[in-house]
Order: sequence, then C-alpha cells, then structure tokens
Amino acid sequence: MKQPLTLHPDRLFPAEPQTRAVARKLYEQVKDLPIISPHGHVPPVWIADDIPFKNATDLLLTPDHYVNRILHGQGVDLADLGVPVGRTDFTEEQAREAWRIFSSHYELFRGTPMKYWMEMELVDIFGIDQRPSAENADEIYDTINAKLATDAFKPRALLDQFNISFLATTDDPLDDLEHHATLAADDSVATTIVPTFRPDKYLEAGRDGWNDLIDALGEKSGENTDTFAGWVAAMENRRQFFKSMGAVSSDHAHMDLGTQPLPADEAEAVYARARRGEASAQETDALRRTFMFEMARMASEDGLVMTLHPAVARNHHQATFDRFGADVGGDIPVAFETVESLRPMLNAFGTNPNFRVILFGQDETVYSREVGPLAGFYPSVYVGPPWWFIDAPDAIMRWRSSVTEYGTFYKTTGFVDDTRAFMSIPARHDLARRIDSAYLANLVVQHRLEIDEAEDLATQFVVDLPKKAFNLEV
Amino acid sequence: MKQPLTLHPDRLFPAEPQTRAVARKLYEQVKDLPIISPHGHVPPVWIADDIPFKNATDLLLTPDHYVNRILHGQGVDLADLGVPVGRTDFTEEQAREAWRIFSSHYELFRGTPMKYWMEMELVDIFGIDQRPSAENADEIYDTINAKLATDAFKPRALLDQFNISFLATTDDPLDDLEHHATLAADDSVATTIVPTFRPDKYLEAGRDGWNDLIDALGEKSGENTDTFAGWVAAMENRRQFFKSMGAVSSDHAHMDLGTQPLPADEAEAVYARARRGEASAQETDALRRTFMFEMARMASEDGLVMTLHPAVARNHHQATFDRFGADVGGDIPVAFETVESLRPMLNAFGTNPNFRVILFGQDETVYSREVGPLAGFYPSVYVGPPWWFIDAPDAIMRWRSSVTEYGTFYKTTGFVDDTRAFMSIPARHDLARRIDSAYLANLVVQHRLEIDEAEDLATQFVVDLPKKAFNLEV
Amino acid sequence: MKQPLTLHPDRLFPAEPQTRAVARKLYEQVKDLPIISPHGHVPPVWIADDIPFKNATDLLLTPDHYVNRILHGQGVDLADLGVPVGRTDFTEEQAREAWRIFSSHYELFRGTPMKYWMEMELVDIFGIDQRPSAENADEIYDTINAKLATDAFKPRALLDQFNISFLATTDDPLDDLEHHATLAADDSVATTIVPTFRPDKYLEAGRDGWNDLIDALGEKSGENTDTFAGWVAAMENRRQFFKSMGAVSSDHAHMDLGTQPLPADEAEAVYARARRGEASAQETDALRRTFMFEMARMASEDGLVMTLHPAVARNHHQATFDRFGADVGGDIPVAFETVESLRPMLNAFGTNPNFRVILFGQDETVYSREVGPLAGFYPSVYVGPPWWFIDAPDAIMRWRSSVTEYGTFYKTTGFVDDTRAFMSIPARHDLARRIDSAYLANLVVQHRLEIDEAEDLATQFVVDLPKKAFNLEV
Repeated sequence: MKQPLTLHPDRLFPAEPQTRAVARKLYEQVKDLPIISPHGHVPPVWIADDIPFKNATDLLLTPDHYVNRILHGQGVDLADLGVPVGRTDFTEEQAREAWRIFSSHYELFRGTPMKYWMEMELVDIFGIDQRPSAENADEIYDTINAKLATDAFKPRALLDQFNISFLATTDDPLDDLEHHATLAADDSVATTIVPTFRPDKYLEAGRDGWNDLIDALGEKSGENTDTFAGWVAAMENRRQFFKSMGAVSSDHAHMDLGTQPLPADEAEAVYARARRGEASAQETDALRRTFMFEMARMASEDGLVMTLHPAVARNHHQATFDRFGADVGGDIPVAFETVESLRPMLNAFGTNPNFRVILFGQDETVYSREVGPLAGFYPSVYVGPPWWFIDAPDAIMRWRSSVTEYGTFYKTTGFVDDTRAFMSIPARHDLARRIDSAYLANLVVQHRLEIDEAEDLATQFVVDLPKKAFNLEV
Repeated sequence: MKQPLTLHPDRLFPAEPQTRAVARKLYEQVKDLPIISPHGHVPPVWIADDIPFKNATDLLLTPDHYVNRILHGQGVDLADLGVPVGRTDFTEEQAREAWRIFSSHYELFRGTPMKYWMEMELVDIFGIDQRPSAENADEIYDTINAKLATDAFKPRALLDQFNISFLATTDDPLDDLEHHATLAADDSVATTIVPTFRPDKYLEAGRDGWNDLIDALGEKSGENTDTFAGWVAAMENRRQFFKSMGAVSSDHAHMDLGTQPLPADEAEAVYARARRGEASAQETDALRRTFMFEMARMASEDGLVMTLHPAVARNHHQATFDRFGADVGGDIPVAFETVESLRPMLNAFGTNPNFRVILFGQDETVYSREVGPLAGFYPSVYVGPPWWFIDAPDAIMRWRSSVTEYGTFYKTTGFVDDTRAFMSIPARHDLARRIDSAYLANLVVQHRLEIDEAEDLATQFVVDLPKKAFNLEV
Repeated sequence: MKQPLTLHPDRLFPAEPQTRAVARKLYEQVKDLPIISPHGHVPPVWIADDIPFKNATDLLLTPDHYVNRILHGQGVDLADLGVPVGRTDFTEEQAREAWRIFSSHYELFRGTPMKYWMEMELVDIFGIDQRPSAENADEIYDTINAKLATDAFKPRALLDQFNISFLATTDDPLDDLEHHATLAADDSVATTIVPTFRPDKYLEAGRDGWNDLIDALGEKSGENTDTFAGWVAAMENRRQFFKSMGAVSSDHAHMDLGTQPLPADEAEAVYARARRGEASAQETDALRRTFMFEMARMASEDGLVMTLHPAVARNHHQATFDRFGADVGGDIPVAFETVESLRPMLNAFGTNPNFRVILFGQDETVYSREVGPLAGFYPSVYVGPPWWFIDAPDAIMRWRSSVTEYGTFYKTTGFVDDTRAFMSIPARHDLARRIDSAYLANLVVQHRLEIDEAEDLATQFVVDLPKKAFNLEV
C-alpha cells in the first residue's frame, strides 16, 4: 500500500510536447526568483518572536480551513481537527489522531490545489517520500514534528529559506503594529514585512459592537468619533500611522461594492442615528457605502492601494459559527456587480494617477463582463488574481483567458497568496508561476506571442507587476 | 452520397497521444461495468408489461424533445414529427415521413450529444452502417422497424442487454406504483427498478388545479388536507409508501430554491387562504418555500435523498403549449441563486448525517461560485451532474473543471441520465464514462494525479459514488 | 532591439500536430473566400467619395477605441492620440507623436486581438517587417503614410483588394442614404453596400433631445408623430425607405431586452405624457419596450432582421464623456436577461417564418443558459457571434463551446466584424476563420465530427450562414 510521493518537474504543464517545452523554459526563468507577497494573513508575531511551530496538526491542519472544509464535507467533526485555532484543551494525542484522520482521508484532496500545496510542503520542506495514508500517518507525523523542533524550521529560518523578499500582513486599524516595529528594527530580518490596513468592521454600523469599535477608534486616534467628520479624521489618522509603518495597501471585504456617498449633511445625520443605534439596515448600508467612498478619497491622497474582494456570505451555517467562530469553512461566495457599484468612486478618482484599486472576486462571471473592460479603460483599476477558492490551476487558466484579451496583462498584479498558511507560501507561488508559464506557452505555440514577449511577461508577472500594482520599492 | 457510419473507439478522447493513451486505459476499466441509473424518466409500464416499441419514429423521434427542438428550431412543424406523444391519428405513413424529415436534416445535429447518442444507438443496437440521409431514410427506417418487431428488442430484453443494474423512475405521489409491484414480484427481472417521489405540483398552490390535487392527496393518504398540518401528514404518508416500494429519492423542480419556512401559525393561515383560492402570488410562493422546508425535514427523517433542479421557464411559447402540451422543447433555463435560498434548509439539516441533497442546474455560473463551496463544506450537499441541455461533452468538462478544485470528486453523484429515451441510456452513460476518462487523463499527464489515483476515481464515478450519493444497496 | 514582424501561417491553430493539420486543411478551404460583412460601422461616405486616408494615426489610432482604451488604461491622455475623432487642431506633428506613444507602448497589446489585427494590417497591407517600437516609430509612420498617399490605398481600391462582397453600414432612420444611392448607381463598385436601420435614440423617450428627434421623424416621414400610432406609422415609413435602399436588418442596443407592450390606450397615454416631457423613468422604459415590440411586429411584416445587443453602461466615466464625447472606450457591459424580456416578442412572432432576431451580448453567461436553448427552439432566434470585446480567440472558442451542443451550428450567423476600423476587416474575418477552423478541427480529432462534415461547416460559416441569417441574395 505504500505509495511513493514525488514532485514531477513538469507538473501542471500542458501535455503537448512543444507546449510543455516552452512552459518549462519560461518556468525555469522565474522559478527561483524571490517571492513578493503583497497581500496575506501571516500573523506578524510568529516572525517577530520567531515562535516555533508546535506539531504537524497545529501547523498544517487546524488553522487551514481549505483543508478542514474538505474533511468536514465528508462528515468529520471540526473539533476532532483541533478547531477552533488556539484551543488549549486539544491534547498531543488528539493532535496525532487528527493527523491520522487527515491521512486516512487523503484521497479526498485529489484534484485540488490543497493536494498540490501539501505535497510540495511534505517533499520540499519536510523530505517526506510517501503519500499520506492511514498506514504511515504516525511515521510522517513524527518526522514532521522532529524537524519542527529544530532551529532550521523556525519562522525566520523558513522565511529565508523560502526566499520571501516582501511580506504584507493584515492588521486592525487600532493595532499598534509593535511586531512590525520589532521586525523593522531588526537587521537580521532580510524580508521587508509591512502591515495592511483592514478597516471592514469599522464601516459596518449595522453589526453588533460597532459603537464600541468607534469609541475605541476615537480614543486611539485622538479624534472625536461622535460625528461623521470625526470618523473620517480618525481614519485618516490611523492610515497615516500605518503608512508610516510601511503599509502599501488597505483591504476591504463587504457584501457589495457600493460606493455611492450620501450628501454630507445626510451622512452626518445617518451617522448620528447609527451611533445611537437607531439607523435602519438600509441606512447602515448607505453609510457603509459613504465610508467606502471616503476610503477611496483618502487613498487618492495618501496613495494606499485599495484591494476590494466583496460578496461572500460568511458563516453560512450558524451552528458551526456558534460552536467554532468565524473562518472555519462556512463562507460561501455570492454574485456581485461592479459597474454601477463602483461608478461613484471611479467617476471621482478613477483617472487620478495617485489612486489604485485592485478587484478580486469569487464570482467568475464578472471577469470578462466587467472587470476586464473596467481595467482596460481606467488607469486606476487593476485585475486582482484568482482569489481564495479559485487560486487553483483550472481557475487561474479561466481567469487569464477571461481577462487577457482586453489587454490586461499589465493591469494584473502578479500572484497574491492571501494566506495565513505560512508553509504553503512557496507552493502557492510555485503553482502560480507554473500555470502562468503554461498559459504563456499556449500563446507562444499558437503564434499569438513571440517567445521573447513571453519571456518578458513571465518575469513581469513575478517581479515588475507586483511592484507596480502595490507601489513597492523593493 | 452514401457515407459510412462507424463508432471510433477513441471518440471523445483528447487528441494528444499520451493523454489519449491514459484516457483509453481508464475507459477500458469502466466501459463494461453495469449501469446505475438513479434518476430518470422511463415509464415503468414499458418494462412491467414489456410493451414492444412501435417503429423508429415512435421510439426515437416523437418522444425525444432534445431531437425535436433542433428540427423545430429550423422551422419543422412538431406535428409532422408525431408530437404530442400518444396521438392516435398519426399514421404509419406519417411516421415514415417523419423519419425522412429527420434524416434529410441530419446535418443539424452536428456538434451535439444527440448525434452521439443517435449514432451509438444506430450502430450498436440496430447495426446500421450508413449515416442517415434523405436517400437512405426508408432503408434505415425499415431496418429498425424489422428489429423492433423481434423479441430481442422488447424492453426487458434490452434492459438485460444494456446491463442496467439499477433504474429509478419518476412518479406522482398518488401513484399506486402497481408496475413497480409487478416488477418487484417478478424474479425474471434482474434490474432493480424503483420509484422516485416527485411532488412538485402539490407544492404549487398558485397553479390551476392545486385544490383538486390536494383533495385527492387527502383521499389517497387518509389525512385531512384542509390544514397545513394535514398536508404534511399526507406527504409523510405517501413518502412512507414510496419508501416501502424501494424509492431512494424525491425530485423537486421549482422556479427558485427558496426554503424559508413561514412561522407555523402563518403557514396554517396562508394554507387556508390558498385552499379557499384567496392567496396572493407572494403568499403561494412563501407557502411553497415552507413546503420545501418541510420536505427537507421529512428527508432528514426518512432518508429519501432530495434532488433539486430549479429555474426553468417551462412552456415558454404559449401557442406551442396550447397545441402540444408540456415537454415539447419550449423550456428555457434562467439564472438562480443557492446561497440565501438554501440557507434555512441547510442551517436546519445541513450537517444531519441522515440528510442529503443533490443540486443540479442549468445555470453554469453557480457551479464554481456557489455549489462547489456549499458541497465542500456541508456533508449533506452533493454536486449534481451536468443536467439536461448540459449533459454534453464540453459542458461536462466545464462542470468538472468548475467544481473539482473545491475537493468535490467525492461529493459528485456519478452520472445521471435523467432520460425517458430508453434506447439512449447506454450511449449517455458511455459518453459520461468517456469524458470522465478524458478529464482524469488530463490530470494524470499534467502530474496533478498519479495513475493509480485516476484508476480508483474512474471506478468510483461509475460504481461507488452513485451508491453513496443515493444510498443504494445494489 | 529590432524585432522582425512576420505572420506565422499556423497562427491561432492548436499546437497538437494532428489537430493543427486538420485546422490548416479547413482554413485553406475558406481563407480566400469573399468577405460578407452584414453588420458594421464603416461610414459610407468614405467609399462613396473615395476619400484618401490621412495618416497612420488618423487611420489606425485616433478612431479605434479598442486601441485607445489600452493606452488610456495605462495613463495615456486620449487627447494625445487625437481623440475625439474629427478634431481640427490636431497637428501633423502631434499625429506623429501619437504614433510614437503607441509604438513605445506596444507591449501593452500582448495577448489581445488588437495585436493580431494590427500586425496583419502592418504586414499584409503595408508591408512592414519590424515589430513596432519606440525606435522604429517614425520609420513605420512614414512608410504607412507614403502608401496611404497612393491610389492603391484609397477606400475603393482597398475594398476590391480586401475581397469584400457585401458590406452593411449603420445609419440613422432619418438619413437620406445619399451615399448608398451614389454607390448603388456606380457600376465600378463591385461590393454590395447597404444601410442598416438603427433607431435606438427614437425609442428612448427618457433621454434629452427625444422630443426634437420625434419632431424631425414626423417631418421626414410625413406622419404626425404626436401620437403613438403616428410614431409607428413614421417608423414603418422609414423602414420601407431603408428597405428600398437595400437594408436587410435593423440594429438595437438598449439597457435591457424588454419587449412587453403596453395596452394600446396606455401606450397612447404614456406617449402623450412623454411628448409633454412628463413621463416618469418607469414610463419611458415601458414605452421603449412597447416600441421594441412594435419594431418586432414591423420586422415580422417587412422582413428586416433584428439584431439585438443590450446591456452596456455607456460613457461610464462622466469626465471623459464631457471632454471627448461618446465612443472613446468608457463603455462597460453589464449582466442581462433574455428569457422573460423576450417572451412577449417571441410569443407573438417567434414562430413566424418572416421574423428573425439575432442575439449578441457581452454577458457570456447567457450563452449556455439562455441563448442556446432559445435558438434551439425558436425558428426565428439566431445566436449572434461574440460581440465587441469578446471578438477574440479565447472568447470565440468559449462561445462556440457554450452554444454548439444545443445544436446551433446552423443557428449562428457567420462572423460579424461590427467595426468602423476599415483596415481591420480582413484581419478580423481571418481571425474568425482560423478560430472556427481550430474549433472544428478539435471536434474532428476527437471523432465528434467526420472530416467531410467539418469541411461542409467551414464553408457554411463563411458563405451560407451569413446569407441565411441576414436574408442576403449575394
């Protein structure tokens, strides 16, 4: 039953031999280039404090809802995988048992990017040479844990090994960014690590706890957040702080992309009602869209790039949310619209050379219908990479195919891993580099691109475009 | 002008030689396995009474609205093809003429699965070796008819020849299922033939005739259907009867997937108004969604698998409906939504191990956006196969490509032919097996799957997954 | 830095050698057939007066918003490219500088059909053998201009060289069509050149200037347009005039496809309110849908084919519109719906043999969900080709793949270039012929079509289907 585990050098490349040869050539050119990760969710404390990883389950299973959800979808109890993250009652024996559960269901990952990431991690990082199975679960678990106990597997050592030149984290506007300060002050950290401004919950006046957040925002910023104008000033203040700490972008996820601002006096009135807890759902939505317009206005002034990724029904299954909290796999995308929603923002700032917005999305229908045309016309609009569930070989191919013909090669951002799964970062970037090489190779063999053009693009995708899209100086 | 008609052994396989070789290998492994058909529309009386087929037109043209619609779309009068099914005034000469019409328009079927099915039927079942044309219409018609007159071409003989191990029909909740009783009692029938509970019209209080149906439901079940509670009890009663006759699933097709239940007292009040013919369209929609929630609740208790395939505008052309009735090609899919619609049902029963729901659909956009993520998370949710118009090579490839990366190989159901066209069942399953082999072969040659993994999956698709998804014990 | 510019004979063909060989064979068969262009925007005056083209910028850059938008999307000021068309203050030196801007940004066109068109124009028409670059901008500009100054590059000579047998223009209902008269009377023009009836703005009672247009319509037609009935009579009058001048179709683009007519008395009342400027937005929408129903009724009588291409948010960026006017790249597609919108029209005229409607669209989701099924059933409904932004290799492949399995090869229209860019017409048709050959070749090598079937279809696409769909007698 023991199956070897190897990484084929031609994996993800097209089968047709001429095309494969071109893909291989393009990939060779970019495979060892440093990783730029301008949008992700690795906790900065891991690196600042160089906290060792605990065990294979704690590292690779418990926090990874991509992996968890597949097992849950076949009836595995998330609690048996250690969910939620940070549980103190999850014993070492339970962690080992979780790895056994994962290993004995390994066939469920066939056809998924999770399999690609996991296998690259197992082989390249941990030197595993067998496919996970019920039989070898303990053996692999022990091998991984033994390595994790060594210095070479602490976050900072891995950061070097992974050749990550730039890493952005995601942070609360009220965060003091102490870990970023630590890292910036430490010359031994070669990677540039910067925060990202993620203000979503401060814009959602219809949610529980908003008023307390706004009180705290006022306190932290020294602005009076009893008025809409005060909210704006407080946000400007916090953005400036983030900018001073190296932030290059802000990150925004709401149910729609609306940016229609209320007239100034109405904004103040609705804000006041919201602070008193008296605003209707319609009013808090209108207020959120007004806040978004203000965010765009600030971005056009301070130059933080906006990343927008709307329209996910979070925590779809209430009982799972009640038991485990957020981010455990119950988030389901829904359809969304960009053209009318973004019109107010783009009419105000769309041709402003200091403004930039990157559109992600899980609703693939908007790519060819809306995002390609918008990015083709507006200098400020960039096509975000296939995000979240669709960060996968076929989906990336569909995405490239949907937007490229609008002339958007140079309006894409390079790959964004968007992950908290630190170990998977090299694998995710490797997957993207391979698929991009395959995509370009297809164009070359169909004589839609010359080879020199493809070679130039392959490097642009990895080096130049992330720098351009996110205003990086690395 | 005589063109040979042959079935190429490599049909539907990718052209690239290595990929084709893998596809061929995978297909060889599954091509002769028995057919499991857990969702279809073959009338059980055909088999119970072993009724001989009349002639080529009556068998292959008149009842097949896939074929009819293509001819109608080029101006052929459906009446000239014998529509509607069961007309007594359609003469033998007219039937022959219908076959001539079909044959002389044979080019219209290029690029369609109907051509694939038809050619496999002509060659494999009837031994025809010429492509249909105006010239050979009579010859082929006579050849087919001569065979149909023999015992080897009666339904039961074909059922054996086709190697169908399991066949589900679709039945009205008030049906006495006498043909199923006949078949179950007959040891000479090797195929397991079971009914499917199809209650749609009893849930549509806004349609003409609903009140009479509900009266009949009350009478048949012995429950008082003057109240909502009585309707529920009556449905429970009929589901139990279907279950006792071997049913494994219920089948549901409405304009949306709504499952939001009304509060109990409101349900009773609206139901009472509907029974008096006084409910508004909004109320009858709300009532239908309440009924659907109840169906799900019953399913979570009695274990009948729910198949949901919403959002088709039936009988789009009123004049055609007036002239020929339903199911004559004028059904057009529309967009639909799953995430909010199914939320009440999935919050109530989504993680119940006794509950299972299979989502079909013609709106391909929901696959990657909604159905993949839902099936990935909820143990109860299965990805239905490409349904109806999209039961076709390119569409099946798109479907696999859209949902596989979510980790749903094991949340698919195996192929479902969903057909009344008895003769086409082997061809439809053959097409699915070939395309699945091709899909898996692509993954193997791109080193996204090992060959042993693909071999295992190829068999899972045909044997294990239909059994698992539909709770079969065959 | 000098890169050669050549056109590979196998460009756009699949890489797999057998498939490529079939594609090449099919393409050889159709590549030199005359071009039928039944839907486009070349100004008839160019040909009637045989007006020489001014320079490379005036010909290839300034009027082409496909090209402009890519440059604008990277921050180039449209004014620097000579926009808007017809500016008298744009100097020869500025025109040369515009060409330099284009040439030095040539990499932006990678992966686009614009690159395909441009390179075929440069090589085949102008004999350029270097890829455009900052270095050779002046050299190429001068080469093109020198050729444009010769008789061989005047519109009529090119029309012959391009082998265009039929060309439709797009014209205002009040146009006197004098240029068409000139062309029809001139035996030296081998191409049949006809007008197309484009009445959009006369249907939009909610837009500024509508009343004046309707006054002019009354005057031109001799009908009293103070009533709805008069509007109808006036339109009938103008359609007859267009028909007498050779028109074969009418062209319609609104935000939705609605065709629900108001009852006659209500139509008159709303029309009267609209004429007084008192109709609400809802009323003018309802009136527009009533007008559309009337257009369909007229079409069912006079036989002009309707082309419908809805749902584009025109002039998305107000400041650009204010500065440069319409058609400068700020048009963004939005989602649309066909099934309910077209139901009134199709119920009234859908099976009328004299009625024909061609559906275009930028929302690709409607192809497999709605358009394929509608065209499959209704004799009058045709699947329009990939329109506008999606007139591109990958998008055409997606389109064929989305609709073919419904049995719509014979419900497609042949290629439609829909362009004002006269020089690009041969390249656009060449691209379509190559991709269609590639699509058919894929079916052949997968044994889904025999080679003789593919050969027949390849010619049908170029010769028979445009004639059939547009009722041509060429």
